[in-house]
Amino acid sequence: MTKATLALLIHGGTENWSPARWKARFDAVCADRAVHLLPDLALDPAKVGYAAVWKPQPGELAGFPNLQVIFNLGAGVDALIADPTLPKLPLVRVAVDDLTRRMTEYVVLHVLAHHRQERYLRDSQRDKNWAPKYQWPASAISVGIMGLGNLGADAAAALKHLGFRVSGWSRSAKQISGINCFHGGAGLEPFLRQTHILVCLLPLTAATRHILNRKLFAMLDRTGPLGAPVVINAGRGGLQNEAELLDCLNDGALGAATLDVFETEPLPPDSPFWSHPKVTLTPHNAADTDPDAISRYVADQIARHERGQPLHNVVDMTRGY
Amino acid sequence: MTKATLALLIHGGTENWSPARWKARFDAVCADRAVHLLPDLALDPAKVGYAAVWKPQPGELAGFPNLQVIFNLGAGVDALIADPTLPKLPLVRVAVDDLTRRMTEYVVLHVLAHHRQERYLRDSQRDKNWAPKYQWPASAISVGIMGLGNLGADAAAALKHLGFRVSGWSRSAKQISGINCFHGGAGLEPFLRQTHILVCLLPLTAATRHILNRKLFAMLDRTGPLGAPVVINAGRGGLQNEAELLDCLNDGALGAATLDVFETEPLPPDSPFWSHPKVTLTPHNAADTDPDAISRYVADQIARHERGQPLHNVVDMTRGY
Repeated sequence: MTKATLALLIHGGTENWSPARWKARFDAVCADRAVHLLPDLALDPAKVGYAAVWKPQPGELAGFPNLQVIFNLGAGVDALIADPTLPKLPLVRVAVDDLTRRMTEYVVLHVLAHHRQERYLRDSQRDKNWAPKYQWPASAISVGIMGLGNLGADAAAALKHLGFRVSGWSRSAKQISGINCFHGGAGLEPFLRQTHILVCLLPLTAATRHILNRKLFAMLDRTGPLGAPVVINAGRGGLQNEAELLDCLNDGALGAATLDVFETEPLPPDSPFWSHPKVTLTPHNAADTDPDAISRYVADQIARHERGQPLHNVVDMTRGY
Repeated sequence: MTKATLALLIHGGTENWSPARWKARFDAVCADRAVHLLPDLALDPAKVGYAAVWKPQPGELAGFPNLQVIFNLGAGVDALIADPTLPKLPLVRVAVDDLTRRMTEYVVLHVLAHHRQERYLRDSQRDKNWAPKYQWPASAISVGIMGLGNLGADAAAALKHLGFRVSGWSRSAKQISGINCFHGGAGLEPFLRQTHILVCLLPLTAATRHILNRKLFAMLDRTGPLGAPVVINAGRGGLQNEAELLDCLNDGALGAATLDVFETEPLPPDSPFWSHPKVTLTPHNAADTDPDAISRYVADQIARHERGQPLHNVVDMTRGY
């Protein structure tokens, strides 16, 4: 019996994420089935059993009568879920170690940069000013991570290894060794009250949209060695209320921000974030993932499904991730 | 019986290292003995049994007939050993976890900054250029650490935790789990041939002076994703041949350097390192240590000595550390 076809619907992309590179990777790991990169006039839509997608157009997934599973080639599924024409089928998000480790690299780099006063040190170098300043140890800094899934838990462990005090907040209760875990609406304020550097790795859902706002920032701990608290958002741009974030940076409610994500991407040239002296900005590349690792993950999941085993990381549509 | 006096000979210092702060800390942890901060005309030199020193003047340690042990309030003893008037007594260097952990913070921050292409990303932000670039994972980078004492071993473990390939080189053979260890003259070239980012944490001795030179840099691996290799020196300025280091940055033999230490400190205003586009520079603050931790360490060592137990971390004068 012929195996069901895998259709690739891939838009945008970079050097590393080109549609052609994805096609070559999936051909290699799905050698026993047809793989078609859309648009492809030679493809019979009825033969498509699986779709692997990156930023598909609204409605683009609707024309496959025998589609069984949709795989999103990234961790965030907010844009997909927002499409009302999305077929009511299992939607799987990738959760590969490669993506997790890259996010941890990003979080550790930017937490350390704030902790070690890199902005002051770069300014001192520019000014040819040899002026060592008091430097506290990592144990004096409390890092609070919002979101304790695979990404948050791995970042927490790496920060703990470096000696930071680490706490976390998640929707539902979690227990992670060595991490002070808070959860739910009632846990949010006590979590924030003891956080100097806030790291946001939440999924974007109706419940988390604009959760990073003035009211939340006002609850962070200002008594640590950094003074005004710091926020690092590597989740989704929609998590932050950008007008309030900017106001808080300007009036001192926040000391600094590292932002990988924005409400509009690419960030428009007239955005005040580009040149804000308290903002470190990266172009949504915190956890760029390797097609090698993701294509293997998708192939493994398809194999599980065809053996009758349950899929991993199926999105809960009511929860939103 | 009156306990022998502890003399403090402390020169220079910063906000955190002021002589007065050291005196207060030693008074607290040596409550059962006299502690004198020099110069102090009330001090009888014959009562001094111990000296704790930071950058003492040449000859300053010579006037204490009953001195038993000298404690250096930092990890590097090269300047002390170079003083021909140094009394022939046990010289103890500090090896406290606090100092080790701070050095690891520094090494991890700067390895990650090179690996994650921070210079490109900061330039892109300045130019308002949203241009994500291919980013390889940590597993594609081989970090080589010169010096595998307390500092090197701790930094190696933290880098390994983040997914880097880690190797190390030391004078004598070492075995560290998960780290590819090289040693001695014969091990140096094979160590360098597989290193993309070189981290130097060696002590400064006659054998290591100017070990970071063109010949050594030329052996580093240029085939990694970073291209030209990177050097991070957080040991001592005397480890680097600064003229050759600068030439290698200018002609592309090296891609970048992070330097915490220099042959002359403070770095003179006319040094080309200040404004070199490939240099990240910090004012010898990689592992600024807490007087709290060091004073406790010295008090513990004195207590051991007075109980007749051997001192820890006594410098081997022929080896030089």
